[in-house]
Amino acid sequence: MQSHGGDGEVINKQVILKDYVTDGASPKESDLEVIANRTIKLKVPNGSHGVLLKNLYLSCDPYMLACMNKFENASIDIASFTPGSPIRGYGVGKVLDSDHPKFKRGDFVWGKTGWEEYSILSTSEAEALFKIDHTDVPLSYYTGILGVNGMTAYAGFFEICCPKKGEYVFVSAASGAVGQLVGQFAKLMGCYVVGCAGSKQKVDLLKNKLGFDEVFNYKEEPNLEATLTRCFPEGIDIYFDNVGGKMLDAALVNMRRNGRIALCGMVSEFQKDKPEGVYNLIGAIGKRVRLEGFIMHDYLHLYPKYLDFVLPPIREGQIVYLEDLAYGLENGPSALIGILSGRNVGKQVVVVTKED
Amino acid sequence: MQSHGGDGEVINKQVILKDYVTDGASPKESDLEVIANRTIKLKVPNGSHGVLLKNLYLSCDPYMLACMNKFENASIDIASFTPGSPIRGYGVGKVLDSDHPKFKRGDFVWGKTGWEEYSILSTSEAEALFKIDHTDVPLSYYTGILGVNGMTAYAGFFEICCPKKGEYVFVSAASGAVGQLVGQFAKLMGCYVVGCAGSKQKVDLLKNKLGFDEVFNYKEEPNLEATLTRCFPEGIDIYFDNVGGKMLDAALVNMRRNGRIALCGMVSEFQKDKPEGVYNLIGAIGKRVRLEGFIMHDYLHLYPKYLDFVLPPIREGQIVYLEDLAYGLENGPSALIGILSGRNVGKQVVVVTKED
Repeated sequence: MQSHGGDGEVINKQVILKDYVTDGASPKESDLEVIANRTIKLKVPNGSHGVLLKNLYLSCDPYMLACMNKFENASIDIASFTPGSPIRGYGVGKVLDSDHPKFKRGDFVWGKTGWEEYSILSTSEAEALFKIDHTDVPLSYYTGILGVNGMTAYAGFFEICCPKKGEYVFVSAASGAVGQLVGQFAKLMGCYVVGCAGSKQKVDLLKNKLGFDEVFNYKEEPNLEATLTRCFPEGIDIYFDNVGGKMLDAALVNMRRNGRIALCGMVSEFQKDKPEGVYNLIGAIGKRVRLEGFIMHDYLHLYPKYLDFVLPPIREGQIVYLEDLAYGLENGPSALIGILSGRNVGKQVVVVTKED
Repeated sequence: MQSHGGDGEVINKQVILKDYVTDGASPKESDLEVIANRTIKLKVPNGSHGVLLKNLYLSCDPYMLACMNKFENASIDIASFTPGSPIRGYGVGKVLDSDHPKFKRGDFVWGKTGWEEYSILSTSEAEALFKIDHTDVPLSYYTGILGVNGMTAYAGFFEICCPKKGEYVFVSAASGAVGQLVGQFAKLMGCYVVGCAGSKQKVDLLKNKLGFDEVFNYKEEPNLEATLTRCFPEGIDIYFDNVGGKMLDAALVNMRRNGRIALCGMVSEFQKDKPEGVYNLIGAIGKRVRLEGFIMHDYLHLYPKYLDFVLPPIREGQIVYLEDLAYGLENGPSALIGILSGRNVGKQVVVVTKED
């Protein structure tokens, strides 16, 4: 690779969206393409107030699969990717050049960036970045436990679910980027925690490495309602829902009075022509159950508080974070599409480069 | 009818459950029976601390249809009716005899009683009664606007939906016992209110008599989602859901960010082998929508505050209350079963006797 900071242009490898996902189809690896025919000048234009990032780690998140569709409705929170352009998501980068007073060359940051080797961010994009002050933990963590997934778990569990010590907590997609944290936060709170995942390897990790009290492989349970009744003979106080559909239905039947359900994600819905449907909402009336959707962006003001909460147990090994690292932008498309089928074990990250 | 308060026994006409509703079937009029072959002594046994009520008005509420089924699950909030015994529900009565210090002969009360001319209530049943202090309004109102339906609308709208002036409010089953109040409370709050009901007569009443801003007959709307988009071009802040199923689905699509949905009743589910299902919950995530089930019993401590709120506008004619009165216990079964199909216009009440 060419030297940094020079005036010359260098190749900028990118993962681009070839075209929008066909209506009703699931996103496929072939909807994305890795190209290496574009160049970039490693310098921020003077007066632009932007920054130039060298991207180090890229986050694979389910919402990105939705962004591969063309949204007709402009009011939607997330924007479609642009065909022919690099897809965008959260990532960790190093500032190579800056015309923004908040950042200087050599800073590490996390936030929205492009799936490419180098990204030039505008002033407004730069202002949405978070400067990384703690580099004694793996930098890749800022795509997950110390980034949006951590904030999602923190806001969803503490702000939406309002847990109390001793409560019964159920987490679906429990080995995922968010679920593994919710389970560990719940254990720190003194809750009883059951998690489900889709493979033996995953449930073993949950039980043996992450400290879940009980686990099950949902693919091996013929009757989810009965499974949850077995795992929660006293019922569920808190269900952190990462999947929707049948699992939500089974949980609704097993909720306790005044139970709370955080609606966090419904990844299963991205790959279906017709959603599964939820049939047991009527039970939420008599049991005074609250279901609440949330987006972690609304809670970003809590980020410093979250770091104070989460850094000590990370350093002391009380919280562990499972990551699934794919090396190289070439492996970006398969890593991103792989989360659709739950192929990843833990948070899926693309390592753009290990050098920094 | 024989004189009151004597030692002799009098006939006590009753509406009894013949047998539990067959599994999966809708409750039918023929599941109930009016009998006049039992007698009662119009005197409370000394030392029982109970009361003897002459029942005046009986409330027909959807949950009673559920009580005609045999519940296997003992943890359920509401109890099955007992075959061969009078069904029970909320009503207004006059105390004919009392061995309870809180009540004296001549008091008017509302609360849980039997579907019969006279009911002897035990101490604990008597203690759950509310003494009626304001008799300048129709006594029948204590089965509805001044009783459980009023408290349901008040708790659900103000405590669960947290309305703000100018917000957009949608109410289903809007001419029903609860819906008509939610709509009028919302208008008092300065909200924009749209209601739906199932007949031309009902929607006309909502628009012309109850002050709803917009109304529609859901039976005449082929696409409920589009109807709600037409009625709420800016989206819905609050949906007070009395029906569930397809209407809830259509509302979910039309909710605004931070919208609130009070899950109050799903009467449609009582008459179906298989519930309709809700498919659009995924939209609750991005829009940060909260859905919450509630039971008005949890809010009965607010009853005095509610009376202070609602009595002045009732007396001044700012709030009107639509009642559908069925006269005589003989007409009780058809009145109760009629709410299943929405035959009633306004709150369905059975008038046991007009004399008091």
